[in-house]
Amino acid sequence: MTTEVIPLGTASAIPTRARHLASTAVLCGGSMVLFDCGEGTQFRLMDAGLKRSRIDAICITHLHGDHYFGLMGILSSMTLLKREAPLTLVGPAGIEAILEALPGVRAEERTFPIDYVVLWDDLTRAVVYETDTYTVEARPVDHRVFTVGYRFQEKTKPGHLDVERARALGVTDYRHYRALKAGETVTLDDGRRVLPEAVVGPPRPGPAFAYVTDTRPCEAAATLARGAALLYHEATFGDDMPQRAAETGHSTARQAAGIALRAQVQKLILGHFSARYKDVSGLVEEARSVFKNTEAAEELKRYKIFPAGP
Amino acid sequence: MTTEVIPLGTASAIPTRARHLASTAVLCGGSMVLFDCGEGTQFRLMDAGLKRSRIDAICITHLHGDHYFGLMGILSSMTLLKREAPLTLVGPAGIEAILEALPGVRAEERTFPIDYVVLWDDLTRAVVYETDTYTVEARPVDHRVFTVGYRFQEKTKPGHLDVERARALGVTDYRHYRALKAGETVTLDDGRRVLPEAVVGPPRPGPAFAYVTDTRPCEAAATLARGAALLYHEATFGDDMPQRAAETGHSTARQAAGIALRAQVQKLILGHFSARYKDVSGLVEEARSVFKNTEAAEELKRYKIFPAGP
Repeated sequence: MTTEVIPLGTASAIPTRARHLASTAVLCGGSMVLFDCGEGTQFRLMDAGLKRSRIDAICITHLHGDHYFGLMGILSSMTLLKREAPLTLVGPAGIEAILEALPGVRAEERTFPIDYVVLWDDLTRAVVYETDTYTVEARPVDHRVFTVGYRFQEKTKPGHLDVERARALGVTDYRHYRALKAGETVTLDDGRRVLPEAVVGPPRPGPAFAYVTDTRPCEAAATLARGAALLYHEATFGDDMPQRAAETGHSTARQAAGIALRAQVQKLILGHFSARYKDVSGLVEEARSVFKNTEAAEELKRYKIFPAGP
Repeated sequence: MTTEVIPLGTASAIPTRARHLASTAVLCGGSMVLFDCGEGTQFRLMDAGLKRSRIDAICITHLHGDHYFGLMGILSSMTLLKREAPLTLVGPAGIEAILEALPGVRAEERTFPIDYVVLWDDLTRAVVYETDTYTVEARPVDHRVFTVGYRFQEKTKPGHLDVERARALGVTDYRHYRALKAGETVTLDDGRRVLPEAVVGPPRPGPAFAYVTDTRPCEAAATLARGAALLYHEATFGDDMPQRAAETGHSTARQAAGIALRAQVQKLILGHFSARYKDVSGLVEEARSVFKNTEAAEELKRYKIFPAGP
């Protein structure tokens, strides 16, 4: 099981023919989380060959239309497809009232329940969703309206069991293998004890992905991205418009790279480009002068994430 | 000026990779009217090379999500593109409350006013939009919820002036030409009178387009389509599922053709196909056995409409 990050839309507010509205899917085992859900996200899932039914949680950064107007259609389709499994919906306060007032979406017309995780504007940080294999954390960032960034974190896995070595020490029972892997000491039939440290490698921390948009460069962005395998950070503007970025609550590509550098991520992908940049290679170059492993987020590409090497 | 009808989406409730959600654009001179506005309509306008700014009116048939969830995004983009011209929005009661409650869409965030034309469920018929060159009429049809069909009607134009014949009768002044075209008798300098009937052909009735979805076959559909150049009629099901069509408030392709035949339209295009029909050629064949000039509505094709020949 390798987690994959799939940008579905990398435009800012106005979609273009080449770039779609904000949404990024994260696939981990059989589970899928969506970060943002701009208009057309359900079509982009089809384009990516991803089934709507795999979505367990949708996490919205803020209530600007380009980040949530795709919710209506996707929730409506889930009912038409007769979904029964609960869906977790994470987002700023207000989202529940919007959806529950909408013909075609509200609870009495749905075939499935929504577990709302409502974020209020006094939030400092919160784990907003958790499964056996990963957690999603939210922290407020710095936009014109209340907005959060997210960190998807695979959980730490037990170290690898060295089966050859265990056998050499006389361990042959699969229940003993399992116990050792779980960190327990086992006693063999002949009374000898085998310590897990002897046959099991160190625990393997899971890789992380940070999703940060729309925001000025901020401390929370760096915290969310700390040591992540992959950071998706908005770069609405280039070096030509830092003033406009600051005024509108956005970042330049160079500022996004500054966050990647501080957070010591493995890789930075830029998105949420203003429609004024037909060609974003200039923005990528500006970012690379600060943080080398940067590229423009490519829609529908599957970015696999791995823990940092030793 | 020839009116063009451009289907943007011909799927029923669940979009497929091949078919998009309900919307059809009608272009008449510099003016555009949208009938329905499913999710993604603003992308389909781009695909069709049509500018959002040309839209003067949007007419919604009913408040099922696949027919109106694209409104949020399109209205939001209009503000981002700094539209100032008023937009007419026609639809069943409830639509105003939905849009005016929505962050990113409500009046205080828009750069332009919306003139709502609200249709109540006791409607019999109404002209819901009118310009110098065309009218749009609504009538209730027969679905599970209150739903209307629309007729787009180009206005009657004055007959052609036979300039050669007018000259032969001594008319040389352009003001006299204009008066004759407007149906007035003119008096020449030598006292002779020229009647308009002598030099102007008969008035030319404008062609019509009827947009009928979602409905069981009904009298109002035939009335809306009477003598139209083009009828877009839903054909959610085929001959295999007439019972399901009746239960869900839809039509079969054959029933749609029956309406086309009764209304004596020039051409019928079918749409709103259930996603279960990967290939709709069977439905088209069923319809053709009743009304020959039938085809499946082709997305992004420009159907030009002309008045019936003499």
